[in-house]
Amino acid sequence: MRAYEVIHRKRDGRPVPPEAIAELVRDYTEGRVPEYQMAAFCMAVFFRGLSDPEMRSFVTAMLHSGDVLDLSDVPGPKVDKHSTGGVGDKVSLALAPLAAACGVKVPMVSGRGLGHTGGTLDKLEAIPGFQVNLPVERFREILASTGACLIGQTDRIAPADRKLYALRDLTATVESVPLIAASIMSKKLAEGIDALVLDVKVGSGAFMKRTEDARRLAEALASIGRGMGKRVSALLTDMDQPLGRAVGGALEVREAVDLLRDEGPRDLRELTVELTAEMLVLGGVAPDRPEARRRVVAAIGDGRGFLKLCEITEAQGGDPDALADPSLLPSAESTRDVPSRERGLVQAIDAEAIGLAAMALGAGRSRIEDRVDPAAGLVVEKKVGDAVEVGEPLATLHLGRAPLESPDAVEARVRGAYQIGSAPVPPERLILERIEGGPP
Amino acid sequence: MRAYEVIHRKRDGRPVPPEAIAELVRDYTEGRVPEYQMAAFCMAVFFRGLSDPEMRSFVTAMLHSGDVLDLSDVPGPKVDKHSTGGVGDKVSLALAPLAAACGVKVPMVSGRGLGHTGGTLDKLEAIPGFQVNLPVERFREILASTGACLIGQTDRIAPADRKLYALRDLTATVESVPLIAASIMSKKLAEGIDALVLDVKVGSGAFMKRTEDARRLAEALASIGRGMGKRVSALLTDMDQPLGRAVGGALEVREAVDLLRDEGPRDLRELTVELTAEMLVLGGVAPDRPEARRRVVAAIGDGRGFLKLCEITEAQGGDPDALADPSLLPSAESTRDVPSRERGLVQAIDAEAIGLAAMALGAGRSRIEDRVDPAAGLVVEKKVGDAVEVGEPLATLHLGRAPLESPDAVEARVRGAYQIGSAPVPPERLILERIEGGPP
Repeated sequence: MRAYEVIHRKRDGRPVPPEAIAELVRDYTEGRVPEYQMAAFCMAVFFRGLSDPEMRSFVTAMLHSGDVLDLSDVPGPKVDKHSTGGVGDKVSLALAPLAAACGVKVPMVSGRGLGHTGGTLDKLEAIPGFQVNLPVERFREILASTGACLIGQTDRIAPADRKLYALRDLTATVESVPLIAASIMSKKLAEGIDALVLDVKVGSGAFMKRTEDARRLAEALASIGRGMGKRVSALLTDMDQPLGRAVGGALEVREAVDLLRDEGPRDLRELTVELTAEMLVLGGVAPDRPEARRRVVAAIGDGRGFLKLCEITEAQGGDPDALADPSLLPSAESTRDVPSRERGLVQAIDAEAIGLAAMALGAGRSRIEDRVDPAAGLVVEKKVGDAVEVGEPLATLHLGRAPLESPDAVEARVRGAYQIGSAPVPPERLILERIEGGPP
Repeated sequence: MRAYEVIHRKRDGRPVPPEAIAELVRDYTEGRVPEYQMAAFCMAVFFRGLSDPEMRSFVTAMLHSGDVLDLSDVPGPKVDKHSTGGVGDKVSLALAPLAAACGVKVPMVSGRGLGHTGGTLDKLEAIPGFQVNLPVERFREILASTGACLIGQTDRIAPADRKLYALRDLTATVESVPLIAASIMSKKLAEGIDALVLDVKVGSGAFMKRTEDARRLAEALASIGRGMGKRVSALLTDMDQPLGRAVGGALEVREAVDLLRDEGPRDLRELTVELTAEMLVLGGVAPDRPEARRRVVAAIGDGRGFLKLCEITEAQGGDPDALADPSLLPSAESTRDVPSRERGLVQAIDAEAIGLAAMALGAGRSRIEDRVDPAAGLVVEKKVGDAVEVGEPLATLHLGRAPLESPDAVEARVRGAYQIGSAPVPPERLILERIEGGPP
C-alpha cells in the first residue's frame, strides 16, 4: 500500500493494515517516504489515534529500525524503569542500585534534560568521571557484574524514532498519545528487557497536565508492552510540585545519596520504594508488593543500595568518594535565598516554573545542544502544605557560572511559582493510579 | 509567528492571526517554510477547518503569490463561471459566447481534465487550430473585442496554489472544503473579475458525492467571494448522470454547437441557460432572473450565441468552419454500440464510471502529463428514466486511436454503470439549490 493510501485511510479513520504501517515506517526511515508524507500521517494520527494492531506494528517497525540488545546471556530478570519526565526526579539514581541490590538486573538507557525537565544522564555526569557513553559490550559486562548500568541512547537504537521525533518536533505532532507511547516503547524494548515499570507524571511539572491524558498514555504504554509479550506496570504519580527538594545535577545526586543513606525527603523515598518494589515484583524476585517494599526498605536501611551505587559508579569510571563525601561534587560558589513576602500555608507550587528557574540558573537546557552546569540549581525549602513566615526562605538558589538570567529574574520566577494562602491544604497523594499490562 | 506555532494553534482549534496565515503561505511559496510543515498544517486544516478571517487571509496570500489581472480598462462587467467538474460538462463552450452575446465580458481561465472528469481546455482544443495558451495582452484584446476569451492557467497565476496543490495531492489533504475553496477562489480572483457564478456538482460523477458536502463548499466559496468584495452565486447541480449525452472532446463540441443552434439535450440547455442568466444578473446587465433567462434563450434562438462562438474561435486561432460543419472536427474511425441486455427503465447511471469509460477510450487522462485523443469518447443513448429494450444501445463508443483498454473492457464499464429496473423513475431535479454571496 502506497504512503498516500495509508495517510488517506488514517485521515478517514479507516483501519490501516499493520503491514502497511510497518512498511511506512521502514520506507520513511530509509528515505523512500518523504518527510511531508510522514508529517501528514503524524497529524492524522494526532486526530485519529492508532488501533492496537496498528500500534504494535508501528512500534515493532521503529524498534527494528536499529539494534535490539539481546541480554539473554546475562542471568536474572532484566527490568527497567522509565519516567515521562518531571522536576526534581532523581529516582533512577537510587532505584537502579536498589533494584540491583535486590536481585534485579537494570539495563537502563536514559535521556538528557530539555526545557523544564531534568535528565538522568545530566545528573549522573555531575558525579566526577562518570561515563554515560559506553560501548554495548562494556554495558553488558557492567550489567552482569554489578547488576545495573546506566547509559545514554546510542545512534543505533531506534533510529526511526530519532528521525520521526525531530519531524514531530517541527510539525506540532509531539503531543499525541500513541506517538509518544510508540516513541518510548520502541527505545525501551530495544534494551532487551523482560519487564518495564513506567512512572507517568501528572501535573504542573509534567508533560501531561491532566490525569485523563496521563491515564491514556499509561494504558497505551501498557497495551504495547502486553502486545510485545513484556510485563509492564505503570504508576500515575503526582508532579504538581517538584519531587523531593533538590533541582539540578549535583544537588540531585546529593539528595539521591541522602535517600540511600536513609535520609532525605519523604515523597522521594516513597516513590522510589514503590517503583523499585514494582520492579522486584515484575522481575519475579519478590512474591508480592508488601514483601518487595520490605526488601527495598531493608536495602536502604542496611546501606546495600548506597554501596551498590558506589560500585556502579566505579564501574562506569566515576569517583565513588564523591558519593561518600558530597563536598567532592561540583558546588556553586554562592547561594541566595528567596525569602517569602507572605505568611501562610503553601497552597501550590508550579513545578514547571521551578524547573524553568533551575534552567535559568544553568542547570538545564533550552536547546538539546546546550551544556548543563552540574553545580547550578535550587533547593525547594517549602513544599505544598508547609507553613511559611514573611522573610523565611521559600527556596535557595545555587548560582551557576553561566546563568541564562540574573539572580533577580530567577528569584521572581521562584516567587511566582508559589501560591501562599490561609486555606488548610489537604495532603497530596503521590501515587494516583496503577495501570498494569502483563502478557495476555 | 513561527510556522510551528501556526500549526500548533490550528491543530488545537485555536484562532490563528490572519497575518500569521498570510506569512505562512508567503514563506511556503518562497521556500522558507518546508513542505513537511505545510503538510502538517493542511492535515490540521482538514480536521479543524479555517475561520472566515483565516480563509480570507489564506486566499489573499495565494492570490497575491502571482499576477493578478487588472481588467478595469476593459469596459463592461467581467463575470466568469467555474464548475467543480463533472462528466459531459460542456457548459462553458456555450455559456461563454451566450454571456458575451448578452453584454457580459467573460475572462475565463479553465483547466484540463483529470481522471473521470473532463476539462474545458481539452474540449476547446478539439476545434482545429484553437489556441488556449495566449499571452495576457492577447487575452485582454480578445476579451475586449469579442466579449470572451478562454485560456489555460499560466505559471504566473497563483503559483502558491500550484505548489500547495501538488503537496496536497501527495498527502491526502485534497478533500478539505476550505482548501478546495481557497484553491478555486485564488485562481478565479486572479482573473480580474467582478463577479463569479459557481456550478458546484453533486452526485456520482462529482467530486462531492453528498449534497451537504457540496453545500459546505458552495457556502465557503460564496463566503470568500463576499469577503473579497465580489458578487458570487453558487448553484448546486445534479451530477448523478452525465450532463447531456456526449462525453469526449469533439463529441462535446458538437453537442455545445447543437445547443447554440437550438437543439441538443434538454438538461444541458436548462443548466446552460440558468448559469448564463445568473452571470447576466450578477453582471448587472439584466434586472432579474426571468428577464435574464429570456435574453439567453433569445441569443440561442436567433443564433447570436453560435455566431459569437465562431467569432471567439476565430480570434483564438481556431477554424470556425469546423463549428458550422462538424464533419471537419476530429472523428473516430469506428464506433460501437453497447446494447442493453435488460429491458426496463434506466434507474441510475454511475457518472464516474461513464467518465472512466471515456478515459479508457483515450478521451481523458489518468495522469496530468497524458495526452487526450479529441476524437475519442462516447455518447450516452439512454438517460435516467428512459425505457430500454433488450438489444437497444445504451451508449455508442467512439473508438480512439490509442485506447487504454479494449472495446470489450470499456463496454463492460458502460454496462456496469447502468442500473435498469422496473420501478417508475421520478424526474431528477437538475438544479438542487442556489447559494448567494454578494458583497456585504
